[in-house]
Amino acid sequence: MSVHHEDELYLEMEKRMRKTATAKMWMCVTACVIACGLSGAALAEEAVPAAIAPTGDVPDNSLIQTTNVLFLLLGAVMILAMHGGFAFLEVGSVRKKNQVNALNKIICEWSFSAVLYFLIGYPISRGVSFLVPISQLETNHGVECVRFFLLLGFAACVPAIISGGVAERAKFWTNVLAGGIFVGLAYPVIEAFTWGQYNSWLAGADGWLAKFPFCRAGFHDFAGSVVVHATGGWLALPAILLLGPRLKRYEDNAIKVSSIPFLALGSWALIVGWFGFNVMSAGSLSAVSGLVAINSLMAMVGGTIAAMMISRNDAGFVHNGALAGLVAICAGSDLFHPICALVVGAIAGALFVFLFRVETEDWKIDDVLGVWPLHGVCGTWGGIAAGIFGTEALGGRGGVSFFSQLLVTAAVIVFTLVVSTAVYGVLKITAGIRMDAHEEKIGSDLAIHLIQANPEEAL
Amino acid sequence: MSVHHEDELYLEMEKRMRKTATAKMWMCVTACVIACGLSGAALAEEAVPAAIAPTGDVPDNSLIQTTNVLFLLLGAVMILAMHGGFAFLEVGSVRKKNQVNALNKIICEWSFSAVLYFLIGYPISRGVSFLVPISQLETNHGVECVRFFLLLGFAACVPAIISGGVAERAKFWTNVLAGGIFVGLAYPVIEAFTWGQYNSWLAGADGWLAKFPFCRAGFHDFAGSVVVHATGGWLALPAILLLGPRLKRYEDNAIKVSSIPFLALGSWALIVGWFGFNVMSAGSLSAVSGLVAINSLMAMVGGTIAAMMISRNDAGFVHNGALAGLVAICAGSDLFHPICALVVGAIAGALFVFLFRVETEDWKIDDVLGVWPLHGVCGTWGGIAAGIFGTEALGGRGGVSFFSQLLVTAAVIVFTLVVSTAVYGVLKITAGIRMDAHEEKIGSDLAIHLIQANPEEAL
Amino acid sequence: MSVHHEDELYLEMEKRMRKTATAKMWMCVTACVIACGLSGAALAEEAVPAAIAPTGDVPDNSLIQTTNVLFLLLGAVMILAMHGGFAFLEVGSVRKKNQVNALNKIICEWSFSAVLYFLIGYPISRGVSFLVPISQLETNHGVECVRFFLLLGFAACVPAIISGGVAERAKFWTNVLAGGIFVGLAYPVIEAFTWGQYNSWLAGADGWLAKFPFCRAGFHDFAGSVVVHATGGWLALPAILLLGPRLKRYEDNAIKVSSIPFLALGSWALIVGWFGFNVMSAGSLSAVSGLVAINSLMAMVGGTIAAMMISRNDAGFVHNGALAGLVAICAGSDLFHPICALVVGAIAGALFVFLFRVETEDWKIDDVLGVWPLHGVCGTWGGIAAGIFGTEALGGRGGVSFFSQLLVTAAVIVFTLVVSTAVYGVLKITAGIRMDAHEEKIGSDLAIHLIQANPEEAL
Repeated sequence: MSVHHEDELYLEMEKRMRKTATAKMWMCVTACVIACGLSGAALAEEAVPAAIAPTGDVPDNSLIQTTNVLFLLLGAVMILAMHGGFAFLEVGSVRKKNQVNALNKIICEWSFSAVLYFLIGYPISRGVSFLVPISQLETNHGVECVRFFLLLGFAACVPAIISGGVAERAKFWTNVLAGGIFVGLAYPVIEAFTWGQYNSWLAGADGWLAKFPFCRAGFHDFAGSVVVHATGGWLALPAILLLGPRLKRYEDNAIKVSSIPFLALGSWALIVGWFGFNVMSAGSLSAVSGLVAINSLMAMVGGTIAAMMISRNDAGFVHNGALAGLVAICAGSDLFHPICALVVGAIAGALFVFLFRVETEDWKIDDVLGVWPLHGVCGTWGGIAAGIFGTEALGGRGGVSFFSQLLVTAAVIVFTLVVSTAVYGVLKITAGIRMDAHEEKIGSDLAIHLIQANPEEAL
Repeated sequence: MSVHHEDELYLEMEKRMRKTATAKMWMCVTACVIACGLSGAALAEEAVPAAIAPTGDVPDNSLIQTTNVLFLLLGAVMILAMHGGFAFLEVGSVRKKNQVNALNKIICEWSFSAVLYFLIGYPISRGVSFLVPISQLETNHGVECVRFFLLLGFAACVPAIISGGVAERAKFWTNVLAGGIFVGLAYPVIEAFTWGQYNSWLAGADGWLAKFPFCRAGFHDFAGSVVVHATGGWLALPAILLLGPRLKRYEDNAIKVSSIPFLALGSWALIVGWFGFNVMSAGSLSAVSGLVAINSLMAMVGGTIAAMMISRNDAGFVHNGALAGLVAICAGSDLFHPICALVVGAIAGALFVFLFRVETEDWKIDDVLGVWPLHGVCGTWGGIAAGIFGTEALGGRGGVSFFSQLLVTAAVIVFTLVVSTAVYGVLKITAGIRMDAHEEKIGSDLAIHLIQANPEEAL
Repeated sequence: MSVHHEDELYLEMEKRMRKTATAKMWMCVTACVIACGLSGAALAEEAVPAAIAPTGDVPDNSLIQTTNVLFLLLGAVMILAMHGGFAFLEVGSVRKKNQVNALNKIICEWSFSAVLYFLIGYPISRGVSFLVPISQLETNHGVECVRFFLLLGFAACVPAIISGGVAERAKFWTNVLAGGIFVGLAYPVIEAFTWGQYNSWLAGADGWLAKFPFCRAGFHDFAGSVVVHATGGWLALPAILLLGPRLKRYEDNAIKVSSIPFLALGSWALIVGWFGFNVMSAGSLSAVSGLVAINSLMAMVGGTIAAMMISRNDAGFVHNGALAGLVAICAGSDLFHPICALVVGAIAGALFVFLFRVETEDWKIDDVLGVWPLHGVCGTWGGIAAGIFGTEALGGRGGVSFFSQLLVTAAVIVFTLVVSTAVYGVLKITAGIRMDAHEEKIGSDLAIHLIQANPEEAL
């Protein structure tokens, strides 16, 4: 920590920077809130008739309803815990001078995501508004409220994934703004056509996609390999490229991570929560399947072992390998035989280790947490794998089409690349997306949050 | 760590201190156990007829019973995890020389709380004793046992809250003793009249309170803004005042917290567990409500965003702001529209940041973790807010009275201030409540636990 | 950290060591996989008819089935979280130069355990193979899949327990191999005769054991005091003895633990998850019992308080005392009165503190985390205690026999000592079980994983 020698000089500068930053911050927020209010109101108007009409619940059996609310709530809570995991995975993987920033980014983006997805995203994706009388919200023990909470957990993964890629150099507020646009608009559009109100187009057995040549079934993504993870990972890539690598990243002395224990802590929180992410993706207790749980387990295990073998027992790769397996299993976790889940996970673990090295070392793309190989590539692999190992020929449950998987996955990649390039491109030439060199050098903790991760030691 | 230079000198002193301390400790414990035994036996005598008669369970449907046991158990477990959160929130917020003490305080006070609430508190609050044959305990799949576990989680919040306020200078054993008195006697009395066996007095629609002028409904506190958090926060205040500030707290070089990551870890554990705290406050699965979950979420989010804006993105305030929102939503989480929950949470977040600064900087009250603004004030605000935003006029579910909320909340504040002043006052002039200056200087970890948080580094 | 001065010299040596190590690693893995494949195939052949015939589920009521799947899944997930707890308990209890190793050991052994228990262990213990068509796996919402997940959590405790005993000096791969043999073969045999397909022999009310003189009931181990914890603890003892103490362990300057906060974090994760370990041991929701929960709580509390009193408020003992209570309560948690559970837990806490000191100080057995007193002895105590406090004479539920408990517990101790001595003995004289002195000196993190826990600081 050579930081405090230079402190006095910087402090004055920082104070001045703060004033401008705060003004900008309030403008961003005001704009956001106004936009939300208007859109929300508009959409609510439309959505009222459809509001709160959960499917699949038999209205005269309250135990079915209450256990269902419990089921979705538990999924939501476990996914909320995953966001704590995202935070600590990043805390451990960045330098100590950016740990506070990692923590604040995750909890703040979660919070903005909740508001935006509540007002705009969920109405877009499911045609349901919450700006209705409270009596409607309480229908069927408030099941739609917990469904929102669960699906927010998925939506908020998008900024959390991006956060790991742009770490240590992105400006706080423009990154929050980009994340807000993705959670409020881009992700809900993808969700609407795959899981939401227009899902019959792409996912329906007789839908638009299923009628395509070679596509004999709709698109299948049980828990979001493509919808959530590929979306997040591919949205991150243009941001990472537009930002450029961290200062001195490719000079002699490689930048090192700060803490393997915190990295592992984050990974464990993600692993444990992931069983809510996958199993509760069933959407209602009546559709719960133990097969999804064992497949998630097998993929996690396959990813861990593969990453361990290839990386020669490297701690970072091992703990991310488990996540790679879990990313890849989401789409087909209800379709695979557990043996195939093990294979799908192992391939994902290997893909991650290999591509993280190629990306960051050979291509010199400074993707700090490897979110493109982890979420982008393994998510893509998961989407395609569902079309391979999900077929009856390979012991799967069938009803899935390789070409449908390929087409929609490709479409999501193209869509996210375009959206992210546009959003981050515009932000780059207007508000700016990168901290200045001085801020980056002292670290985002001091530059943005005026504090260090261990303030007592910094005294 | 300039500690080890002075070590040899101190070590001898410590050993001598230990002997006296140990003797005192055993006396405290013996007295406690005897008192408990007697009270427990006396109360059990009375309570036997009422024992284990859970309400609302239909005896002939075992699935209703078993899912109910599961529901309460999950709540209990999530609240248990919150106590781990209390521990780490304090670990991160104190200096490194008091981290071990924070950890030991929380797990030990949890343990003493369990015994005292089991023997004395629960019989007082609910008129149910567990000193009955095992066959009675197993009635309805042992639902009363898990209800005890759940409600213990609430009760044990009281010493856990106080712990954060008196940190870094309180004597271990007198603080445990005070906490034991609160959990065993003071809190159960409050609980009895609001949630427990005498709840019809204050909470009943036709009760004593509801007949007061201007009070057209009973007191409503769904998950404990007042009963748990205001109680804990206001009990802490006299203790903090009687202790006085930490040495050198108000000299030039401000005392700094030790670890933002541990602080954030504690906050995340609290946030995640809080959804058990609030949702499972329904008391039985048949009363579960998704509205409670979404309102808790919105308040957490509102508190986070407000704290972030006002504190200019300070990590400590942001992670406590989420908690402020959650404290405030407890009382009315079943009454509010989610939009109002967002507002209630945001006001709580703002209140916390503002009052923490006023309290600790202007008034020079050294409330280490800010438990008075966080639990005391935001809990009070939550109790009152239930009477405002819970009304039908503001989109709430109604059946709540502003004056009833105000009166009971005020009564709880007065009661807790009196009790705490009496208990800590008597302890101060008898056994003493504060470590001596030498102990405080070397830190409670070395002084009390004879170890430091990172013993290897201290070698 | 005096490590980096010697780095250059060591680095070359390490590289050479790596090559051999990697070759060995691949050989181990290949052998394992082939063995598994063959055994699995053989067993599956036999097992097919029995596959997936869960007991106790009424096939025509889907809500019973789905809530049951949820129940078992929640147990499995909570036990998975415990493995994160094992990791951090060890991270905190070893020196900083072995923290990464602790993390990698736990997640890797979990992963290998999953594969081996899936292919070999579960078929041995329950006569059920998963190498069957997917349609069979989906029977009754895939309940057998989540049951596997739950029981894997128990099985994988065995290597996780051993890991704590052999920490800081064991070779990675031979330890993984030994763990694999235990999870794949030794543990499933114990499980088969107590909980699994042959459980009527020992556990049945009219079984082989119950007909023994003095034994008027079968062996009872509700949640694994003996089956899981004694097994793990006693398997660890020969390994610890064959390894010998860490270098300089019994020289003047005692080896100190690295981090009380991480130790406590691990303990909290274990405590919270343990309520899944114990309550979900019921095996189906229809057998859930709140009594199990309150007894687990009371034992945890008793263990904590006893350890605290005897150790004079030592942080390590307090946080392990809670675990000692929980280890001891497993066997009789469905039988005891809560007051007896408190006593059983308190005795366990006291046993742990006393025997840990005797073992590591007087007998100079270098059991790093005290897994023999914690799991071995307290597990044994729990098994026997079930035969004492579980009797109706002491307020228990009855149906348990002191002699049956004693006999089977003794048999498990003898069996595990023999198996472990054989496995570690053979490994010691062939592949070797201990790192060389140089590796141990630089720490397993650098020697095996080529990284330190805080790489940035090590720069």
